[in-house]
Amino acid sequence: MKNRFATLVGALALSATAAAQTWIWYPGDYEIWLGNQMNNRRTERGAFFPPFWKTDSHYVVVEFSKKLDLAEPEEIFIAAEGKYNVKLDGKLQFGMPSTLKLPAGKHSLNIKVWNQSTPPTIYVKGKTVNTDKTWKVTYEDKEWIDESGKASDTSATIYMDAGCWNFDGATQLPSRFSLVRKPMKAVSSTPQKEGVLYDFGKETFGYITLKEVKGKGTIHIYYGESPEEALDTEYCETLDKLLAEPGQITDLAIRNTRKLYDEYTLDNSKAFRYVYVTCDPGVTMQDVSMQYEYLPEEYRGSFKCNDEELNRIWEVGAYTMHLTTREFFIDGIKRDRWVWSGDAIQSYLMNYYLFFDNETVKRTIWLLRGKDPVTSHSNTIMDYTFYWFLSVYDYYMYSGDKDFVTQLYPRMQSMMDYVLGRTNANGMVEGMTGDWVFVDWADGYLDKKGELSFEQVLFCKSLETMALCAGLAGNTADKTKYEKLASALRSKLEPAFWNEQKQAMVHNRIQGKQSESVTRYANMFSVFFNYLNADKQQAIKHSVLQNDRILKITTPYMRFYELEALCALGEQESVMKEMKAYWGGMLKEGATSFWEKYNPEETGTQHLAMYGRPYGKSLCHAWGASPIYLLGKYYLGVKPTKPGYEEYSVTPCLGGLKWMEGTVPTPYGNIHIYMDKKVIRIKSDGGKGVLNIPTRKGMKAMTIEPGTEQVFKY
Amino acid sequence: MKNRFATLVGALALSATAAAQTWIWYPGDYEIWLGNQMNNRRTERGAFFPPFWKTDSHYVVVEFSKKLDLAEPEEIFIAAEGKYNVKLDGKLQFGMPSTLKLPAGKHSLNIKVWNQSTPPTIYVKGKTVNTDKTWKVTYEDKEWIDESGKASDTSATIYMDAGCWNFDGATQLPSRFSLVRKPMKAVSSTPQKEGVLYDFGKETFGYITLKEVKGKGTIHIYYGESPEEALDTEYCETLDKLLAEPGQITDLAIRNTRKLYDEYTLDNSKAFRYVYVTCDPGVTMQDVSMQYEYLPEEYRGSFKCNDEELNRIWEVGAYTMHLTTREFFIDGIKRDRWVWSGDAIQSYLMNYYLFFDNETVKRTIWLLRGKDPVTSHSNTIMDYTFYWFLSVYDYYMYSGDKDFVTQLYPRMQSMMDYVLGRTNANGMVEGMTGDWVFVDWADGYLDKKGELSFEQVLFCKSLETMALCAGLAGNTADKTKYEKLASALRSKLEPAFWNEQKQAMVHNRIQGKQSESVTRYANMFSVFFNYLNADKQQAIKHSVLQNDRILKITTPYMRFYELEALCALGEQESVMKEMKAYWGGMLKEGATSFWEKYNPEETGTQHLAMYGRPYGKSLCHAWGASPIYLLGKYYLGVKPTKPGYEEYSVTPCLGGLKWMEGTVPTPYGNIHIYMDKKVIRIKSDGGKGVLNIPTRKGMKAMTIEPGTEQVFKY
Repeated sequence: MKNRFATLVGALALSATAAAQTWIWYPGDYEIWLGNQMNNRRTERGAFFPPFWKTDSHYVVVEFSKKLDLAEPEEIFIAAEGKYNVKLDGKLQFGMPSTLKLPAGKHSLNIKVWNQSTPPTIYVKGKTVNTDKTWKVTYEDKEWIDESGKASDTSATIYMDAGCWNFDGATQLPSRFSLVRKPMKAVSSTPQKEGVLYDFGKETFGYITLKEVKGKGTIHIYYGESPEEALDTEYCETLDKLLAEPGQITDLAIRNTRKLYDEYTLDNSKAFRYVYVTCDPGVTMQDVSMQYEYLPEEYRGSFKCNDEELNRIWEVGAYTMHLTTREFFIDGIKRDRWVWSGDAIQSYLMNYYLFFDNETVKRTIWLLRGKDPVTSHSNTIMDYTFYWFLSVYDYYMYSGDKDFVTQLYPRMQSMMDYVLGRTNANGMVEGMTGDWVFVDWADGYLDKKGELSFEQVLFCKSLETMALCAGLAGNTADKTKYEKLASALRSKLEPAFWNEQKQAMVHNRIQGKQSESVTRYANMFSVFFNYLNADKQQAIKHSVLQNDRILKITTPYMRFYELEALCALGEQESVMKEMKAYWGGMLKEGATSFWEKYNPEETGTQHLAMYGRPYGKSLCHAWGASPIYLLGKYYLGVKPTKPGYEEYSVTPCLGGLKWMEGTVPTPYGNIHIYMDKKVIRIKSDGGKGVLNIPTRKGMKAMTIEPGTEQVFKY
Repeated sequence: MKNRFATLVGALALSATAAAQTWIWYPGDYEIWLGNQMNNRRTERGAFFPPFWKTDSHYVVVEFSKKLDLAEPEEIFIAAEGKYNVKLDGKLQFGMPSTLKLPAGKHSLNIKVWNQSTPPTIYVKGKTVNTDKTWKVTYEDKEWIDESGKASDTSATIYMDAGCWNFDGATQLPSRFSLVRKPMKAVSSTPQKEGVLYDFGKETFGYITLKEVKGKGTIHIYYGESPEEALDTEYCETLDKLLAEPGQITDLAIRNTRKLYDEYTLDNSKAFRYVYVTCDPGVTMQDVSMQYEYLPEEYRGSFKCNDEELNRIWEVGAYTMHLTTREFFIDGIKRDRWVWSGDAIQSYLMNYYLFFDNETVKRTIWLLRGKDPVTSHSNTIMDYTFYWFLSVYDYYMYSGDKDFVTQLYPRMQSMMDYVLGRTNANGMVEGMTGDWVFVDWADGYLDKKGELSFEQVLFCKSLETMALCAGLAGNTADKTKYEKLASALRSKLEPAFWNEQKQAMVHNRIQGKQSESVTRYANMFSVFFNYLNADKQQAIKHSVLQNDRILKITTPYMRFYELEALCALGEQESVMKEMKAYWGGMLKEGATSFWEKYNPEETGTQHLAMYGRPYGKSLCHAWGASPIYLLGKYYLGVKPTKPGYEEYSVTPCLGGLKWMEGTVPTPYGNIHIYMDKKVIRIKSDGGKGVLNIPTRKGMKAMTIEPGTEQVFKY
């Protein structure tokens, strides 16, 4: 019983929304709306660049309701974003009341809001009546009346639990949310032929500020993640163009003219380390600085060890994560700045070992799903749809937040219906017209035709996820249905793709015929999904994972899974070498954040190019930060074994290091671990932990008691 | 060939969008957005009252495109509502250009717009390149690129034809649309105990204007369609409350404060004939007048005859139609002011004999359908869903506008999928939880349980409509599918509902057992749908339609169909008497527009009550105007027999009158008819017409030649 109580407390503690009163909305709607602000901020050389998938929006008319039972009368304060009405026990109140007296006893309170531009939200504050996630909300109350005025009693309206975040003050309007800004100076400025190159010392993000602009003429601002990019005015990926005139300044890209004061800060944020500013002869300015913009995050996870290069890798990884953890987990800060499902699932996993910021995970999952009807895969990419399913159960395992899964479940169903509507006669997915079969950016030919083993493996895991989530949502019929579908597909995987001769899963099968190609993707996922027996997993290690003749992975994105598979096979020592070589390689190239893609075989400005453009590559990409995850999960060795760390295991592994120590955040607090070649010290704030200590006879399991540090010699 | 050409010219002429350049949008989106403005203007005693069904919204990111082939270079002007980009041959242009030079030759031009608040729209004007409905538009272009920068070539994007109306000027922003206003004075003012009662002489609609408000205190404005309502400050349906203060005035319902000038016009429109204004002692004003608001419409249809009461019925019907024909065809102007499908289909039909305003029909059809997913019946009402299907084919028959049907067809499919997903084991519809089975406001018990014959008849006609529209959209598979479904249901109607003893269709069937109840609804629809043989139709006339023991119809709504059924059975003389008694009855009660409901057996203020409220009834309701339709279609006797009046018939019938004359609008112009007991004169502007002249031996068909008046003696 004691433990049970602890879990409940933990579950409460992890919710950011248990405050007395907070702004509420239709779940997912604020997230989708805010995501539109995010996804529509991309620019390419001064041109607006919105996403190419369907952009959903909020329900514009929403009804909030709450059943009350008051011991004594109270007065409530009411605020809303939108035009609204208030009904007490079915009776409409005059106007849009900002206060209302509630009599004692049982009552029903309904507030209905219309807002086209921003999500309808409300805020109610009283002595006991306060808006929070216990309020119900719907986009169709179906409250018709008959000729006598009697309201319908057969409504089939679906009420959801209200969505909320941390807008707990009456004047903290959700639609006015913005990240935090902080002024920053360049570390150096270097005169060039036609202007000045400013270096901000490391990759950063924000708004350029110009001081004391005088005169009349055009100002060009060219941004670069590298000096080459900033100075290449013809090909840099992002730029701004301003027209200075006496007393005013015009942003020519967005055609916005503002009065000119001492300082002028641009309206559009950019990612850069370098900024090259040129002015027409008639224009002068005093200084170029910036407003750094960020989401305040607590670095709850940590990692230190005897290897300074690895420490630096962790730090740069954490900074990369922080730069890309904004309103949402985005891919990279320079180019897309979009929310991509395949990128996001890795951000979530890293986040569980760094910020443990559940709110940003949930926001990103809602946004990626969008609204029904489903008209394409997530971001149009088949594999990204599957990652989306997987990410939901990952989140549940780390957070224990069953409510979220239950709320989201109907949209999981419709997403899976879309996938099931696109399977072939074998019940497998193949790229149909309009499907982007992505897999990875590979330096070599990847066939996308027919049944890809990689996609089937992800599809199978998605079906298993649906069965688990159906169970959580209490939908037993769905649970059975998805279990059947998953096991039917699972049983087909080996017959379809395992090649005895190659001792590997082949890449794809076209019209029932295995191709000759073997790639790493399906093989590595099969390992950590445990889809193959131990013998075959070990076989893969040699035939694929450690086989240099198999097409190499050159994105940190797929290296994430590749190295995870090797860790799962107990190859921490070789993975440590790989990490140092690969991420250390980027550091040696001068990286101050990790990149979208890195091929150690390339040199110089080759590292900057991608998509056929000389600076197309993003040098700060969330998926570049995977050591954060690998070090937390496979070296510190911490992972939940029951949802929300109710139970967890710690299997620390030095992997060649002399010592390491670090912290892994959990819903209960933290787990702190120190390990050297003789001793393991561990301190946990809660949950039922098992420490796996390596001994000569194999692993030995010890119980971790919460509260005090325990020391284990081994 | 000549005739064929004439048809084409006619088809062009009927389009309001063939102008050189016009603002364009995603089809249906502007309509839905404008509809939200309309549907969210309802108030009840100063409280905002939005609809209870799902309110859809526009796609917030939309891409417009056009393939060009230019003989010479030209410069275009570009405007947009929203943040936008411009791509020429795939290359993004800097910023949001307002002009662009297009080189000669073949090019592709793409403009992508994001707008959360109002629909993304664009306007392009050049020498030959101009926005119109030939532009393509999509909400997901799926234009991903691969690692090399190559754009996807397997897009399954669905491109629609752009939507437009009549916003042909660069500064005529669609989001700024408003109806026309005209100042009007009260015809009398009468001091009352606490204020003044103003009479505007007839039912009207608009904004109250107060002149020279002085002092400090509250002003109450009580609206009434009757003097009783305006003077009943406790129960009148609509009111306004203002706070006058020196130099400013606050609308207390919407909490909007404005500077006070000589005149103050309220922000909210209301319907009324009477206005009762009371002021706090400290407040004075000089005058109360109004701004009448209306949609400019040409009265293309007309009707005159020797009977002055009937002429007055036609005029009041036309005025009722004009008051309720606004941004959309709405139900009534006082209370709901919502777009209801059952009301709208009758407005459309009346419109074809009065304004022939296709644009308002199309706007209303788009709005009523909304967006996918379908989560309820149209306005939550089962029967209203079926009327929606029927209205689409009606529109096609009158207008010949096949493009509209083709564009709309995908949403017809998803609407019908919703219906088919709610059928029982017999393939029939029954009210499920959340379905409002309406039928009619009846002064007696209407059972809504089980299979209602009325709903099956409408469902069957809807399936037939789907088959027809599938054919128009070129979807032969669907055509076959819906034909099969329709004929399967059709064959079940008589076995299920015809009662030999009662010589009528019974009202409903519960668990396979016919009820004892017979109502008029299914019987009358079976007549004009021709679902029963001639013997049974005649039987129904006596056993139901002219049988006083069958529950009487007391709404003009169902009288529309009842009288249409009788006309279809050749009962024009008795229908004429009914029209004069029923609509004439309302006139005798002082009606200046026709009512939502009229029971001749009621007296005095009983006529004002409905929904359990003393003034709940709407005294200006579109469905009250049905004589407009009946006189045009069954007395002047004009109807299209091929889409868009390519062919039509005229079967004039005096129905007891001495003479009549009138005009019926068509896509070709007008058809003018005069008839007395000896002669028929007819003049038509186009189309292939057949005049059916009554002779002793029955009807004699004569060809109507367009252009000159023809005179037929009979």
